Amino acid sequence: MKDLNPWIAGLKFDSNGLIVAVVQDHHNHEVLMVAYMNAESIRRTTETGLVTYWSRSRQEFWVKGATSGHLQHLKSLKVDCDQDALLVQVDQVGPACHENYRSCFFRDVETGELVINAERLIEK
Amino acid sequence: MKDLNPWIAGLKFDSNGLIVAVVQDHHNHEVLMVAYMNAESIRRTTETGLVTYWSRSRQEFWVKGATSGHLQHLKSLKVDCDQDALLVQVDQVGPACHENYRSCFFRDVETGELVINAERLIEK
Repeated sequence: MKDLNPWIAGLKFDSNGLIVAVVQDHHNHEVLMVAYMNAESIRRTTETGLVTYWSRSRQEFWVKGATSGHLQHLKSLKVDCDQDALLVQVDQVGPACHENYRSCFFRDVETGELVINAERLIEK
Repeated sequence: MKDLNPWIAGLKFDSNGLIVAVVQDHHNHEVLMVAYMNAESIRRTTETGLVTYWSRSRQEFWVKGATSGHLQHLKSLKVDCDQDALLVQVDQVGPACHENYRSCFFRDVETGELVINAERLIEK
């Protein structure tokens, strides 16, 4: 790993070396997904402009959209007061969700039940 | 704890019984903060309409704004595809951040440095 920029080194990572990243559509401000980054994936994101996570399930770097083509182009990056959360604003290509919804948050809680908002599905 | 609604029982909580909650302003779609909830704090949030977290630092329930008056009135609740993250849309009274910024994400990463966006400070 290359030397980290001081702002990255100053973040509060959890015991697994991860920080939570909230991903928001730069254009319409829709919250698209939540994922996790480690220091190196933050460095790769800022250097390449392609949002890159650490996949907790696969234990590997995950360039969002590398397989599906549904890339996230980095537009801006913000850090919260406690420096333990990131807000990643992106230009999202296609659906953010692997289930083909525009956002991973396609289930609404309505009168105590989960209701799928099918209007948010993107046609293949 | 009372019996949980099935949709809450079906969520994927972490090893500490917590789930990450992204909090978004219902009106202007600004992302305000990230916090954590357990099953009981979700139940309290939906029953009372006042957003209630589990404070990891104090290890207690935390009705946002109970002390400061900066309450969050629940407007809608969404669940992500993996059922391990919540999107909480709120009517935010005053600043969401304890540092008196409208949003906890008041630091922008600009050319490799953290820059505080003072325009987002709310006058006392």
